[in-house]
Amino acid sequence: MYPILSKSPLFMGVSPVEIENMISQTPHVVKNFSKGQLVAQRNDEVKSLTILVEGSVKGEMADFSGKILKIEEMQAPKPIAHAFIFGEHNQYPVDVVALDDCRILYIPKADFLALMQRNATVLINYLNSISNRTQFLSNRLWFLSFKTIKEKIAHYLLNLSYGGANATLILPKSQQELAEFFGVTRPALARVFSDLEVEGIISIKRREVVIRDRNKLIEIAS
Amino acid sequence: MYPILSKSPLFMGVSPVEIENMISQTPHVVKNFSKGQLVAQRNDEVKSLTILVEGSVKGEMADFSGKILKIEEMQAPKPIAHAFIFGEHNQYPVDVVALDDCRILYIPKADFLALMQRNATVLINYLNSISNRTQFLSNRLWFLSFKTIKEKIAHYLLNLSYGGANATLILPKSQQELAEFFGVTRPALARVFSDLEVEGIISIKRREVVIRDRNKLIEIAS
Repeated sequence: MYPILSKSPLFMGVSPVEIENMISQTPHVVKNFSKGQLVAQRNDEVKSLTILVEGSVKGEMADFSGKILKIEEMQAPKPIAHAFIFGEHNQYPVDVVALDDCRILYIPKADFLALMQRNATVLINYLNSISNRTQFLSNRLWFLSFKTIKEKIAHYLLNLSYGGANATLILPKSQQELAEFFGVTRPALARVFSDLEVEGIISIKRREVVIRDRNKLIEIAS
Repeated sequence: MYPILSKSPLFMGVSPVEIENMISQTPHVVKNFSKGQLVAQRNDEVKSLTILVEGSVKGEMADFSGKILKIEEMQAPKPIAHAFIFGEHNQYPVDVVALDDCRILYIPKADFLALMQRNATVLINYLNSISNRTQFLSNRLWFLSFKTIKEKIAHYLLNLSYGGANATLILPKSQQELAEFFGVTRPALARVFSDLEVEGIISIKRREVVIRDRNKLIEIAS
């Protein structure tokens, strides 16, 4: 388990031997789940640092009519619901279901706190990890505040290009990932890119985008 | 400064005397800013824990055409950009401008880390505080994923009411706050509430809402 844990964002920079020392000195539990088993239910209190050490899980949420709304997959060695251990609403935001046979490590909240006080690397890793989550969400909200996909894309491209009118830029995400980020379908995203190209505002070739008319892009974004 | 700091979410549960001891043992700087002065610029690296100890500031962001887009106000004794000290994008998300004459306390990141390792209360307060931010953003994103205001409100009311068809519930936010939360105007929000009332789905009197037709509400939310 320790070599796997050293690949988890929480133990980055800590050797498997150090991790073994650290965890053997800390109260913890390891539980096995079979494929399809419910690992945690939405609104359950998050009482422990919870790390998937083997297998994969999905997070899902049923709406009020029973329809499953959102699905997110996580693979070992990722922490589960780690931004929900602290704070006023320390509850699972989704149902967590095992996709394969899984092994999960639990370190109770108070013991995890003590561990972070003893080990600065784990503390920094955890702070980075929940701050990354906040920054990602804050960035996504910013883009969602623009009404049309065209506005979102114009903002996104302008943010990526610090340069002038012919700035060439490389998209850091695939069109599939971009579509998910903006909360739209992939065809809808592709259509907007194609419109922008027909209008002579950008040219696009795979992930390379050239901004041909920066002023028009600014107009769309404003 | 110490009695004020004891009212800050970061020092909750720590007495002014303890705060004074703690901070006098930690490298720190206090800076004064005059009304209208730029405190930090968007994309500046956040290098310190930054707490407003006197006065108020606003966060603002100009869009690509120069128009100011978003404004947020913060009053002493609130921390500034505290979810942006750690993580990969540890940069101010907005310009910060002094609204009055201000005093600001800075504790460098490394010294703040050492302080959290020594003092469990400050560590827990900080973890709670950034986790609350993540949970708030995650909740807002969830509501923004519904397309119409009516869908958002239906979800919001169903979340608040665990009860049956005639569940009475009290809105925890004013209509102004709700409108901001959903990212819509107050009149648009009021119109939807009034529609839902005319359709016999809810009745509403100030902050008290009675759900009269839960099935219809579920239908709207789905």
